[in-house]
Amino acid sequence: METEIFEKRVPLLIRGVCHGGRTVDVAIAGDGTIAEIGERVGREHEHDYVIEGRGRVLLPGLANTHTHAAMTLLRGYADDMLLQPWLSERIWPLEAHLQADDVYWGTRLACLEMVMTGTIGFNDMYFFMESAARAADEAGLRAILSYGFIDLGDPEKREHECRATEGLADHVARMANPRIGAAVGPHAVYTVSAEGRAWCAGFAKEHGLGVHVHLAETRTEVDDAVTATGKRPVQHLDEAGLLGPRTVVAHGCWLDDAECGLLAERGTTISHNPASNMKLATGRAMPYPDLKAAGARVALGTDGCASNNNLDLFEEMKTAALLQKFAWNDPTTLPAAEALELATVHAHAALGWAGGRLEAGAPADLILLEIATPCNTPLHHPVSNAVYACSGSAVTTTICDGRVLMHERVVPGAAEVLAGARQAATSLLGRAAAARGD
Amino acid sequence: METEIFEKRVPLLIRGVCHGGRTVDVAIAGDGTIAEIGERVGREHEHDYVIEGRGRVLLPGLANTHTHAAMTLLRGYADDMLLQPWLSERIWPLEAHLQADDVYWGTRLACLEMVMTGTIGFNDMYFFMESAARAADEAGLRAILSYGFIDLGDPEKREHECRATEGLADHVARMANPRIGAAVGPHAVYTVSAEGRAWCAGFAKEHGLGVHVHLAETRTEVDDAVTATGKRPVQHLDEAGLLGPRTVVAHGCWLDDAECGLLAERGTTISHNPASNMKLATGRAMPYPDLKAAGARVALGTDGCASNNNLDLFEEMKTAALLQKFAWNDPTTLPAAEALELATVHAHAALGWAGGRLEAGAPADLILLEIATPCNTPLHHPVSNAVYACSGSAVTTTICDGRVLMHERVVPGAAEVLAGARQAATSLLGRAAAARGD
Repeated sequence: METEIFEKRVPLLIRGVCHGGRTVDVAIAGDGTIAEIGERVGREHEHDYVIEGRGRVLLPGLANTHTHAAMTLLRGYADDMLLQPWLSERIWPLEAHLQADDVYWGTRLACLEMVMTGTIGFNDMYFFMESAARAADEAGLRAILSYGFIDLGDPEKREHECRATEGLADHVARMANPRIGAAVGPHAVYTVSAEGRAWCAGFAKEHGLGVHVHLAETRTEVDDAVTATGKRPVQHLDEAGLLGPRTVVAHGCWLDDAECGLLAERGTTISHNPASNMKLATGRAMPYPDLKAAGARVALGTDGCASNNNLDLFEEMKTAALLQKFAWNDPTTLPAAEALELATVHAHAALGWAGGRLEAGAPADLILLEIATPCNTPLHHPVSNAVYACSGSAVTTTICDGRVLMHERVVPGAAEVLAGARQAATSLLGRAAAARGD
Repeated sequence: METEIFEKRVPLLIRGVCHGGRTVDVAIAGDGTIAEIGERVGREHEHDYVIEGRGRVLLPGLANTHTHAAMTLLRGYADDMLLQPWLSERIWPLEAHLQADDVYWGTRLACLEMVMTGTIGFNDMYFFMESAARAADEAGLRAILSYGFIDLGDPEKREHECRATEGLADHVARMANPRIGAAVGPHAVYTVSAEGRAWCAGFAKEHGLGVHVHLAETRTEVDDAVTATGKRPVQHLDEAGLLGPRTVVAHGCWLDDAECGLLAERGTTISHNPASNMKLATGRAMPYPDLKAAGARVALGTDGCASNNNLDLFEEMKTAALLQKFAWNDPTTLPAAEALELATVHAHAALGWAGGRLEAGAPADLILLEIATPCNTPLHHPVSNAVYACSGSAVTTTICDGRVLMHERVVPGAAEVLAGARQAATSLLGRAAAARGD
């Protein structure tokens, strides 16, 4: 295989790929958009590379609407615990030792995993986000990056969080990379004061940024808010002006009917994270049937690797379809084609991207899947196989913004990323152990 | 890579593999058993091949305690439907056209998928089981094969099913392949009359065979039995003498407390099929906490590819752990190490096999997983990564009964199996269409 195919964005032609029951060609222009898609389109001599699409299924590149990318470093560090001891005894004490370099390597590992499982962009919330921005930039993925704003009602801490949020927005603006955007990330109603929420809403509005927030993940979160304030978390976000078409709320397990209606009305996206919700036993599945009936936009997310423990959206599509059927006792709920939409067209739209659909003029954000493998044999319905039978390991080629990030399962620099992330994880655990006096 | 490694069972040495927090060597004898396992055991010159284990995790080979292997041909044929129309309008009309050759190719495809995802044996129930036996034999896997006995109360049909069951037992006995065994497969209480159940119990006892039966999958199944007979399905099986230590009951979603206790007392294995139960919306998860408390043996199964839609037990381990936490609202339920046991030591024991544990004298049924891949980076806890982060695509090497079936992801003859299965599926759909007059 020619490794130059990875080097830069050039005109590409994909020949004879299976898409929507037809065999099509895809001509990708040098500006990273799809020039033409259809039967026998594009001329080979006008393209720098011709990718053989025969034996492959073409799908839009997937987008992950809720994750904490650098938590790949905590993959498998602690599982199978009650939420509070898990957070307070295991996750937070380790995160307290995180440094910028850890976040860089953790995010590089996350990007590698996403590229290898067909995800071309992600909505991230974490710390040291300048390092995350560098990682996403170098990996060639799209990313919307938010600093996890947590003030716990402390004015001094709030000041710090405001400055961090401003700093990230400024940093991302200066990068001037159209693939990378900033968002405002008030962590959740229970961790951000009314003043903090109001500041976040104002800053987002002033700078034209989206919002990324956890919402109604657990029953405790909702009950505590009602007990303390007489209001449910959705109402707090709405009163702050944080709900709008550029807002992504993660989880939404405990939304009630009226809240589903309100989120639909506001044009807000609900990011469904079924694997994380099941692993942490949130007690209720996000009410997809109610959200769908209300006309709300639902997209898919993996959450971070401490509570999933991978970033494979193929697996997440299946888990979502299975959980929704099981939770609402109806096997017709969330059929395969809708599950794919949650990870493609809805997810791209949620993040303000024009991709998720394969059509002329759209960004060339697309993936190819191997057909000559058990999960695609037989190929009665490619979308069913993608959702229910395949994992991300069926992806052979990942193209983001017209640039080839993986081809024939080869990602340039993968070994260096794995080694760097392994080293960062070891170093992080070493620092935490030293601080404990182990 | 030397392809001779696949040809026959020979003494093998695996050097320097990661297992249980240590680096060990595994010496495999020419008789297919583990001769030694430990730090610096085995001498290279006494072995025909030395497999480099550095950078790999060693696990026992997985076993699938409930599937309909040849239903790979129906993968993705019909999804997202209510159970009755799905069966009566889509699955059964197609199955009516199945021929022996289809079952051969469907089972070969299933075996290929299992080898590629680290499963070294399976408990199968279907039709044309002589063809399934040939496929398992050629693929090098272990299999317990049962003919799906369905008499619907019709004495003439019952006679036919008895002869088919006898025929399979006789055929398997004549194969004299220690990897392949027969079982008696009364389909379920709602499809097999009391006379049929009694015959099955008697035949199993007389010939020393195990039993494979569906049980308490849906609420309707239990309610209908109670309405028609005043007894629950478990009681019917017990009265027939079908519950014992060599019986595997599949699903068990609607078992009550007393039934969990009875199954434990009988030594019966309950095969948990979480993905299928969720996809078909059985309405309740198998009560793992109750079965565990009662001391019953629980193992894992995938069900057939029409209701899953793959045979990847890595995915199934995760789905089981997630579903059990979610269904019983406790993130400590079914931790990773137990999920692995459900697919290894419990599954092997359920099928009467000595494997599932890695120790001297045990069958060399084992798999290696890639470490230099995102799902195993970092490697804080290999078992957590295996259950929660990896899919079966992380398996590099599959060894069953001391014979190498896959090494470095290469399975000899894979392309022929994929082509044969694709052709069989096309032919099956063609015959069904012709019969409908399409």
